[in-house]
Amino acid sequence: MEWKTFGERRIYSNPWVNLCLVDVQQPDGLRWEYHVVRLRHLAVGAVVNERREILMMWRHRFITDSWAWELPMGLIEEGETPEETAAREVLEETGWRPGPLQPLLYAEPANGITDSRHHVFRAEGASYVGPPVEQNESDRIEWVPLGEVRGMIDRQEIVSSGSLVGLLYVLMDEGIR
Amino acid sequence: MEWKTFGERRIYSNPWVNLCLVDVQQPDGLRWEYHVVRLRHLAVGAVVNERREILMMWRHRFITDSWAWELPMGLIEEGETPEETAAREVLEETGWRPGPLQPLLYAEPANGITDSRHHVFRAEGASYVGPPVEQNESDRIEWVPLGEVRGMIDRQEIVSSGSLVGLLYVLMDEGIR
Repeated sequence: MEWKTFGERRIYSNPWVNLCLVDVQQPDGLRWEYHVVRLRHLAVGAVVNERREILMMWRHRFITDSWAWELPMGLIEEGETPEETAAREVLEETGWRPGPLQPLLYAEPANGITDSRHHVFRAEGASYVGPPVEQNESDRIEWVPLGEVRGMIDRQEIVSSGSLVGLLYVLMDEGIR
Repeated sequence: MEWKTFGERRIYSNPWVNLCLVDVQQPDGLRWEYHVVRLRHLAVGAVVNERREILMMWRHRFITDSWAWELPMGLIEEGETPEETAAREVLEETGWRPGPLQPLLYAEPANGITDSRHHVFRAEGASYVGPPVEQNESDRIEWVPLGEVRGMIDRQEIVSSGSLVGLLYVLMDEGIR
């Protein structure tokens, strides 16, 4: 049931977004042009410290006009590994340097339309460096007790998929309902 | 720390994808044009039956060239509620009619670049109607024991964020590690 592709043409190109039309054939034989949005990939740093608290940011997303708590995350720069990105973003966005990062899980946020990939990491502990360098990202940076996370999800105070997959995995792993 | 917007212009428009440039001002005062991909929203039907098994589909995603297990899901059509979409997609894609659907959680898969929204539901049980109407979606449809899901996530046999958030929430809720 694999869809065959026969090349693609680019409609719009930019460092952040590439819009393409892919020549594709469905298993039933229908051949057509399918819109694909090619994006840069994201690394998410899910930081848990030893006191079962998570380093999170309260921020606004203008595209969906939502205020919510998020894990620090950002786009992978040229030449970086996802792990390096996660460590850099945690420090830039929160002012805390995470301990050694371990891969937690891999996610494709919207693989029916984009090729975006999320690499989610986990760290045990972090050390405070100073105020965050990045000034446009969040209003508040807090260590959130894991036991409060489920209620925050239920109240839609955490909505970004990159944050949700990392937090829910950790809740499952720690046996916290 | 809210980003202000001053209107937008559309670069490309289509029933599936709209690419826009939004005139935005960051909290530090910098004003620029930000690329936003406006997409149709998705409903995900996370179906759990009473034997702690989940109705899933083994499918290929050509955009990321990944084979993986997914929950049935699809785009919300004009005039549908997300719940109606979830029920329709489960039936079309699997041939099973889900029991009453309950909202499970809400997710924004990539809210730094798209306005896509995922509405994830949960159902207790389903009744078999017949072979799925939709012939292009999956190779295999199976009831997967919840206890196997974590290993499948760790082996990247489940990668779509819509599936991951629903399944991880249910694993947490059921207390399964």
